[in-house]
Amino acid sequence: MLEDLKEKVFRANLDLVKHGLVIFTWGNVSAIDREKGLVVIKPSGVSYDEMKASDMVVVDLDGNVVEGDLRPSSDTPTHLILYKAFKEIGGVVHTHSTYATAWAQAGCDIPNIGTTHADYFHEAIPCTADMTEEEVKGEYELETGNVIVKRFEGMNPVHTPGVLVKNHGPFSWGKDAHDAVHNAVVMEQVAKMASIAYAVNPHLTMNPLLVEKHFSRKHGPNAYYGQKK
Amino acid sequence: MLEDLKEKVFRANLDLVKHGLVIFTWGNVSAIDREKGLVVIKPSGVSYDEMKASDMVVVDLDGNVVEGDLRPSSDTPTHLILYKAFKEIGGVVHTHSTYATAWAQAGCDIPNIGTTHADYFHEAIPCTADMTEEEVKGEYELETGNVIVKRFEGMNPVHTPGVLVKNHGPFSWGKDAHDAVHNAVVMEQVAKMASIAYAVNPHLTMNPLLVEKHFSRKHGPNAYYGQKK
Amino acid sequence: MLEDLKEKVFRANLDLVKHGLVIFTWGNVSAIDREKGLVVIKPSGVSYDEMKASDMVVVDLDGNVVEGDLRPSSDTPTHLILYKAFKEIGGVVHTHSTYATAWAQAGCDIPNIGTTHADYFHEAIPCTADMTEEEVKGEYELETGNVIVKRFEGMNPVHTPGVLVKNHGPFSWGKDAHDAVHNAVVMEQVAKMASIAYAVNPHLTMNPLLVEKHFSRKHGPNAYYGQKK
Amino acid sequence: MLEDLKEKVFRANLDLVKHGLVIFTWGNVSAIDREKGLVVIKPSGVSYDEMKASDMVVVDLDGNVVEGDLRPSSDTPTHLILYKAFKEIGGVVHTHSTYATAWAQAGCDIPNIGTTHADYFHEAIPCTADMTEEEVKGEYELETGNVIVKRFEGMNPVHTPGVLVKNHGPFSWGKDAHDAVHNAVVMEQVAKMASIAYAVNPHLTMNPLLVEKHFSRKHGPNAYYGQKK
Repeated sequence: MLEDLKEKVFRANLDLVKHGLVIFTWGNVSAIDREKGLVVIKPSGVSYDEMKASDMVVVDLDGNVVEGDLRPSSDTPTHLILYKAFKEIGGVVHTHSTYATAWAQAGCDIPNIGTTHADYFHEAIPCTADMTEEEVKGEYELETGNVIVKRFEGMNPVHTPGVLVKNHGPFSWGKDAHDAVHNAVVMEQVAKMASIAYAVNPHLTMNPLLVEKHFSRKHGPNAYYGQKK
Repeated sequence: MLEDLKEKVFRANLDLVKHGLVIFTWGNVSAIDREKGLVVIKPSGVSYDEMKASDMVVVDLDGNVVEGDLRPSSDTPTHLILYKAFKEIGGVVHTHSTYATAWAQAGCDIPNIGTTHADYFHEAIPCTADMTEEEVKGEYELETGNVIVKRFEGMNPVHTPGVLVKNHGPFSWGKDAHDAVHNAVVMEQVAKMASIAYAVNPHLTMNPLLVEKHFSRKHGPNAYYGQKK
Repeated sequence: MLEDLKEKVFRANLDLVKHGLVIFTWGNVSAIDREKGLVVIKPSGVSYDEMKASDMVVVDLDGNVVEGDLRPSSDTPTHLILYKAFKEIGGVVHTHSTYATAWAQAGCDIPNIGTTHADYFHEAIPCTADMTEEEVKGEYELETGNVIVKRFEGMNPVHTPGVLVKNHGPFSWGKDAHDAVHNAVVMEQVAKMASIAYAVNPHLTMNPLLVEKHFSRKHGPNAYYGQKK
Repeated sequence: MLEDLKEKVFRANLDLVKHGLVIFTWGNVSAIDREKGLVVIKPSGVSYDEMKASDMVVVDLDGNVVEGDLRPSSDTPTHLILYKAFKEIGGVVHTHSTYATAWAQAGCDIPNIGTTHADYFHEAIPCTADMTEEEVKGEYELETGNVIVKRFEGMNPVHTPGVLVKNHGPFSWGKDAHDAVHNAVVMEQVAKMASIAYAVNPHLTMNPLLVEKHFSRKHGPNAYYGQKK
């Protein structure tokens, strides 16, 4: 069942390790089959060295395990909330990558201060609000998804495909698992550059014209970066 | 004698190199056989490239060499004090890993400012007090163990499995050698994230609810992270 | 056509990856055949893993594709302006390498504060001015070249073979593609050292005598570094 | 001639690359045969990839090439001054390693703030004074050696086997080429830790008792680290 998607999710999980975003079991990737309404996700706490494509777990959008011998990632309810709220996305990634997590711990949005950022994220990468006692003591992972969705009110999640959960770490998404991993790598790189840039010049400024130019160069009807598809 | 434990301690020592925590001979791992009251530890000043499992040294809890042709690590008395004071632990690690050592040199506890930290360490990772003239000029390595034990008065060493010895570097522990190395890797990662996070926002705050949630998600009777055992 | 130059430009592009300056498609190298007035450049948005020497695109100095099935890099107009304005150069590189990009985001020149810098760059590595609305909304990549050229008024581009485009990233050049990549590596290293040096001592000073000495040791009529040619 | 020493110097030069201290040709190692009064040193500006043991150059203490087809390192006069002034040393290393060079650019001694430092360097790693016009415009590399020697007046170069040349970079030494490289690695590591430690706590303090304890634990008549020799 969903063998092709399992293979893709499996490979995307390994890519997190290859790109240096994950040690131990500190990350997970999922992807959705929108037609079937099923999500494939990494099992919880399984080492990347030993994991096989067939270990991927299939769940429905209510979190029921449809196929798989292992428990799905403990972050599964967060992924599901994102799939339900952001209809255009096909893959979700969570990591504790070093610099993005540090910004999440700092509790700060990563400002859009360069074209590297603007090529992928239209806005600052937002940091969520503090979670309340009700949220933390209730269905915590589901509520983590809800605070993300709340933070994106008035924002387009496709144009800014990532978020920092305060005191926790980054989530990113994309049109599929591979794309979501790509955005996770960009977030980590952008977070690193921003921390260095502000150390060099705490009063730096961004030219807002560049944000629009670079974002539209890669996205939207007038994009001209890359090869014609 | 204790061939299986020697093999495990040997492998755990090599894992320090694999995880980038140790260069040259700047680290050591030990493990204890509680029933026999014997500790297996890395020999002193032997290169990781040339080391064999059979080079591991067996000592009793008073530090007498029971088996082995080489001198045990010069830090052996520190390890032994920790085994005697912290009855639940099975492995001890000492390294000079970059970021954790920098925090030890800074003389600061690493505050619990994120879920990466809270997943493994309930409290701030404490930094010990300055050692006195008596302690330094006396049985220095044994007294290093004592200042650690003193720092943990009123704390649970199983819930916060690591410490920074001031102006020196980190010690960590766990249920066995492998687990102690795992915690050493986490400490280094947490130390790095914290140094970046405070550079980004010196006034950052932690949500205390997340500490309890994440620690209990992985530890204790209601843990639900990972696979059922 | 220009098979030899294509091979060199191809290898120079791969060297960006080897030296850790580029992830994904975030960089491009070109070289010019001055006699024929033709430039060989990386295709746009093609992955380094899959790229072949034969994928390199040949364009004339007006940007017309003379040979090649793929679109040239979207930064081609910037490269062409540099070749037209800086007659002595034979290769151009653009990357988003971490530290040089961070300085570009900071909007600061990288001051010449050490002999590593002075061995290659006579002056501070300059950062360009903010681009105007006309420049950004007009022929943006061409105007990016123009702001670089404007920044070098009164400077010798051969003696300071690199620049930071504000809020964007570094461009470097050299006598050929290989040399331009070499200078890109130096810029990244110099940017990293400078960010650390200023963190250690914000009030540091440079001995101007060393700038002249080291630059002339490697460049000009009395150079004596390396082997006699 | 001196084939064994050439092999050792060759291997020590490659070790600089292996330990990540050197890119391109930015480093050199030499060693001395005290009996013959001859020094073996890396040739100038030769790539590490192409270098062979037989490329090592033999010079006398006045800098005359005694054997070898290539020019010796342009830093040879600095090495020779150190061999003449510091009679106990057998090997010298110069690099532009990132963190040590950053401290040299900052113009600051690296304070002894931890046992990692104290295990190898008794004092702060000193930074030299600004070089005068006479020194820079005269026999520059020889005078670089002289400012180092002057900085060590009243200090024991065996107990503090390294220095930062202001606005330039580190030199280190040891009982042979291998040992000098070892100390170069330690300097880089110590420089990195110190930059992080001061960022965490600009007001950090060192326990002077630990300096004496750790230095004497590894050096001098009562050393007890490592295996009995």
